[in-house]
Amino acid sequence: MKTMAAIAWRAGEPLTVEEVDLDGPRAGEVLIEVKATGVCHTDYYTLSGADPEGVFPAILGHEGAGVVVDVGADVHSVRKGDHVIPLYTPECRQCKFCLSRKTNLCQAIRLTQGQGLMPDGTSRFSVGGAPLFHYMGTSTFSNYIVVPEIAVARVREDAPFDKICYIGCGVTTGVGAVVFSAKVEAGANVVVFGLGGIGLNVIQGAKMVGANRIVGVDINPSRVPLAEKYGMTHFVNPTDVDEVVARIVEITDGGADYSFECIGSVTTMRQALECCHKGWGESFIIGVAASGQEISTRPFQLVTGRQWKGSAFGGARGRTDVPRIVDWYMEGKLNIDELITHHLTLADINEGFSLMKRGESIRSVVVF
Amino acid sequence: MKTMAAIAWRAGEPLTVEEVDLDGPRAGEVLIEVKATGVCHTDYYTLSGADPEGVFPAILGHEGAGVVVDVGADVHSVRKGDHVIPLYTPECRQCKFCLSRKTNLCQAIRLTQGQGLMPDGTSRFSVGGAPLFHYMGTSTFSNYIVVPEIAVARVREDAPFDKICYIGCGVTTGVGAVVFSAKVEAGANVVVFGLGGIGLNVIQGAKMVGANRIVGVDINPSRVPLAEKYGMTHFVNPTDVDEVVARIVEITDGGADYSFECIGSVTTMRQALECCHKGWGESFIIGVAASGQEISTRPFQLVTGRQWKGSAFGGARGRTDVPRIVDWYMEGKLNIDELITHHLTLADINEGFSLMKRGESIRSVVVF
Repeated sequence: MKTMAAIAWRAGEPLTVEEVDLDGPRAGEVLIEVKATGVCHTDYYTLSGADPEGVFPAILGHEGAGVVVDVGADVHSVRKGDHVIPLYTPECRQCKFCLSRKTNLCQAIRLTQGQGLMPDGTSRFSVGGAPLFHYMGTSTFSNYIVVPEIAVARVREDAPFDKICYIGCGVTTGVGAVVFSAKVEAGANVVVFGLGGIGLNVIQGAKMVGANRIVGVDINPSRVPLAEKYGMTHFVNPTDVDEVVARIVEITDGGADYSFECIGSVTTMRQALECCHKGWGESFIIGVAASGQEISTRPFQLVTGRQWKGSAFGGARGRTDVPRIVDWYMEGKLNIDELITHHLTLADINEGFSLMKRGESIRSVVVF
Repeated sequence: MKTMAAIAWRAGEPLTVEEVDLDGPRAGEVLIEVKATGVCHTDYYTLSGADPEGVFPAILGHEGAGVVVDVGADVHSVRKGDHVIPLYTPECRQCKFCLSRKTNLCQAIRLTQGQGLMPDGTSRFSVGGAPLFHYMGTSTFSNYIVVPEIAVARVREDAPFDKICYIGCGVTTGVGAVVFSAKVEAGANVVVFGLGGIGLNVIQGAKMVGANRIVGVDINPSRVPLAEKYGMTHFVNPTDVDEVVARIVEITDGGADYSFECIGSVTTMRQALECCHKGWGESFIIGVAASGQEISTRPFQLVTGRQWKGSAFGGARGRTDVPRIVDWYMEGKLNIDELITHHLTLADINEGFSLMKRGESIRSVVVF
């Protein structure tokens, strides 16, 4: 079949929207009509050429929502007409990782997914007979996509695609880090570095579970009103204080019970650890640091009880937890609408990156 | 009263055994006759002058066992004749830390203890009217000591002092890191860096809880037979392999579920983290690094699920958990006897440091 898609032909060049050939789903695969997709920093990171694992030409996009159009043989968990969110972190429920009960990082198709291919080692996308690579196992910048069944979360049908697509990455990454990775308890003090899309979702996750003080840290005060609306109780601007860590320890009466780094800076990753409470404070790295950069601290920080951890896709098991987050949104526990600042058509998708680079958007969503 | 004690007059000089004046216990304090004390690396670290918080003149020693001789007013949890282990990590059961249920690092008397003083800001030790400092709140290199009630663990009376004194630090630090800090579960793969006194106790802790593979890492193969006797199943000598981390990942089929650094080297701390299993491996720093040194790694290690933690005094709550460890020893679950390689008199206490420096002892114990 044919589908319209935005193609990344080369690193550093704008996407071009073209008609693409799409092979149908094979055994264990699902054909999805993507109804909406977010434009995420990770897409831009790969497009820029900075991602050492980026391959081209490819169809980017990993934050979508849509409807199942067809399924291949041996697909049992979804069927035609189901509303779904494609998952860049699959959940096979059978690998060592899924069965560990300790991680969401299913490794069933990691190798081929990292190569931009389907699990059988081939691509479903092509132009003029020449294959295009998949991206993060999802490629939601295409109107139609084929993904493995284990990478499809079925969600309720009354949820709007142009909002829940954001649950395919940003919302889950932030809210999930609080709920699934950190398991923040009511009354805890939470510190969030970075008030971008991820940080705001961490904040609303912390509010949802009943956190006490929710401290936001950012050098840009323009996000303060929205962050406060989402649950931030205290704001620290590092340019206004002598010692960020000392100020946070003061606000939290001893340090953060949980801190979250949503920037991708090794400097703030260290601050996020060291502002944690002695004895038990846990710091979670969510942001992606530049290639080759390293975090460091004195080991004394850990011996005295602080813990350094990370969170990927919010610790969420895609097929199990993503539908729950959709429920939380539909039940009014989470506010996604105000984070989606711009709607675009596929033809305007490059504008999504421009808005992001200029800091004007929190999330831009392409509606097909 | 008078007591014999080994005095550290100055950093870098041998201890001198002298008669010391000891004031009796004040309210909330306990007078203990120390029956035996271990000679630990930490004593040597402070004596050497490397400890930035070391104060002199002081009576060192923190790994003792003895009998309560007298108690001050308002002491209710122990009485004359009780067999006890003095605790350098107290357990007040009332501070924010004790009540958190998340840490063993009671802070009730941290400030004065760090200054070498009793909680009321004075010393009980003096020579010719000039005060001597306490050390780690214990000073077990003195035959008689006064310690706060919250720093006294009552233990069973049939346990031999010259063995259970080691539970005052080394045994608890190693076994506790496994049982209380890491909560290692049966079937887990454990990696231990350093086969000294702490490492061997980590190994027997791992064996006690039913660990699967127990991998020891050390550049000195002479400890292998004893380590195997204590439960080590695999040995890696970093001088014999190209890549320590890769070799451990191979042995453990993907990486350590739990690793423990018992050396104090920031290089092995990094290896201990990076040899952990993707998705869930937890690395615990036990060893004390040289002042000013820092640990580092790529944040990707944490984002993909490895966790960096630390353990002090094995995560054990002194008054609650130390008596349990004594029970485990008496029940034959733990082997302490073979780790105590030398018995000394107080007059020979400096020989304990010499044996340690020459690597000839695992633990030397002074019996009064």
